Amino acid sequence: MTAWAIAIHGGAGAIPTDLSAERAAAVSAVLGEIVDAAKATLCGGASAIDVVQQAVEALEDNPQFNAGHGAVLTADGTHELEASIMCGRTGKAGAALLLRSTRHPVAAARLVMDQSEHVMLAGTGAESLAIEHGLGQVDNSFFTTEHRAAALRRFLAKEDVGPHHATVGAVALDQHGHLAAATSTGGTTGKRPGRIGDAPVIGAGTWADARVAVSCTGVGEHFLQHGTARRVSDRIEFCGETLEAASRAAMHELPAASGGLIAVDVTGAVSLPFTSAGMYRGCASMNSPTQVGIGPT
Amino acid sequence: MTAWAIAIHGGAGAIPTDLSAERAAAVSAVLGEIVDAAKATLCGGASAIDVVQQAVEALEDNPQFNAGHGAVLTADGTHELEASIMCGRTGKAGAALLLRSTRHPVAAARLVMDQSEHVMLAGTGAESLAIEHGLGQVDNSFFTTEHRAAALRRFLAKEDVGPHHATVGAVALDQHGHLAAATSTGGTTGKRPGRIGDAPVIGAGTWADARVAVSCTGVGEHFLQHGTARRVSDRIEFCGETLEAASRAAMHELPAASGGLIAVDVTGAVSLPFTSAGMYRGCASMNSPTQVGIGPT
Repeated sequence: MTAWAIAIHGGAGAIPTDLSAERAAAVSAVLGEIVDAAKATLCGGASAIDVVQQAVEALEDNPQFNAGHGAVLTADGTHELEASIMCGRTGKAGAALLLRSTRHPVAAARLVMDQSEHVMLAGTGAESLAIEHGLGQVDNSFFTTEHRAAALRRFLAKEDVGPHHATVGAVALDQHGHLAAATSTGGTTGKRPGRIGDAPVIGAGTWADARVAVSCTGVGEHFLQHGTARRVSDRIEFCGETLEAASRAAMHELPAASGGLIAVDVTGAVSLPFTSAGMYRGCASMNSPTQVGIGPT
Repeated sequence: MTAWAIAIHGGAGAIPTDLSAERAAAVSAVLGEIVDAAKATLCGGASAIDVVQQAVEALEDNPQFNAGHGAVLTADGTHELEASIMCGRTGKAGAALLLRSTRHPVAAARLVMDQSEHVMLAGTGAESLAIEHGLGQVDNSFFTTEHRAAALRRFLAKEDVGPHHATVGAVALDQHGHLAAATSTGGTTGKRPGRIGDAPVIGAGTWADARVAVSCTGVGEHFLQHGTARRVSDRIEFCGETLEAASRAAMHELPAASGGLIAVDVTGAVSLPFTSAGMYRGCASMNSPTQVGIGPT
């Protein structure tokens, strides 16, 4: 059987301890639907790079997750969105950051990869490219939900908002043997405007090559200081570790409870380690039906 | 004898083929002076992190180099500056990007590392932090030199401006056995506003840990897609390569003529490989007097 695999995440460490059974069921249903859609596309022969973009756009559209519509607010009460994507077949990557009006930040990252000579583009430079290529633009307030506005009010009142790091991401192996990864986020509730996390940084939050594809989520600063996404690949390349060993070891290089990551390798193996209380996640492969999870397995 | 080492660069691939003997002598003199100043400070017991910041600030002040005063111009005719710094002792890092008014971008990166909970801060978010902490601010035109304005005019007229990638950087081992690295740049002549290169990206343009400190220069997009600075450390850690072998191998993972890097390790070894026509560079260590170079050795 031809190998294929898909894994997605909707953030780690952002799981409210009082998550209701209804909310958990709703989130699980969405994760399952997105995995199923990706699975169908992969099994139809689509490329990994298209599938991870499609999955991340679906996560960006869903208000439950901190990316696109439903993203958290900065201290200024606005949204600054960031995303990246990497193609393991070509080694090319794109990142778009400090976005304010592009509806699907991951689509802007894809444009940077495909339609510019750059890897990272920020702000109006990235959004002018998005507009040139017809990507949908929205008012900044489009991204706001009442849930996130309330979280910012609690943050500004110095009330506990709980762990507020979250991100969405997808990694895939397609039936042609190619890997890809993508990550997107609104950052952290009440962040200082201009703060950039690991999500748009190739090697930190996102990585894909001929061996493995990785997308991270959690305390962005820790992933930036450890270059975690690329580290998984280096451990496989240089130490001959399995995907599971490499991805767990890379997570355990970080301070405790930093977050988690999703990874698939070229054999179709999937690894979803996290050191936070939970991680919204889902996966499927040629060996395994769709599975979703929130808390510890 | 206690080990110490300093290496600096003033950019790779940006060496005009018609560099006059006078200009070469002037640049060499400046590189030598900055190495000598760093050497004196290191031998006085200063920390590597302070020494790399001091050296990069001196390079930023000198109009010969593409960082701070003398930085290249964007397509809009303005300056967007970026820098990063990393401390091998603590594993902490800071980056400041899309700066328009902070005189010493590397000092802003240091503030992000020391005085914020973040690793990467952009634009007005970074500059408000710089202002809060009293860093010197200047008008954006302060950074412009006639040489760079002429280069932009040629670029906009679609005339050849030659290789226009350049960066400055410094790496050091102090007498306490600690390593640090810093990098700063104005980017590329005529760049699209919002374009971010490898200089402010931890793991791509800058890396320091307990083994090695690295600063890169050249085609930023290549260094971003290969995570070159961190790769040197990974090769030493996982493959047991020497500094020289690891830094050369990391450069040769990139497309031909991508640029160069400077690296020092915890034993005081220095490596300065480049695949471009030249790299402005200088170094000194407990084993070697001050040396400077521009073209192939």
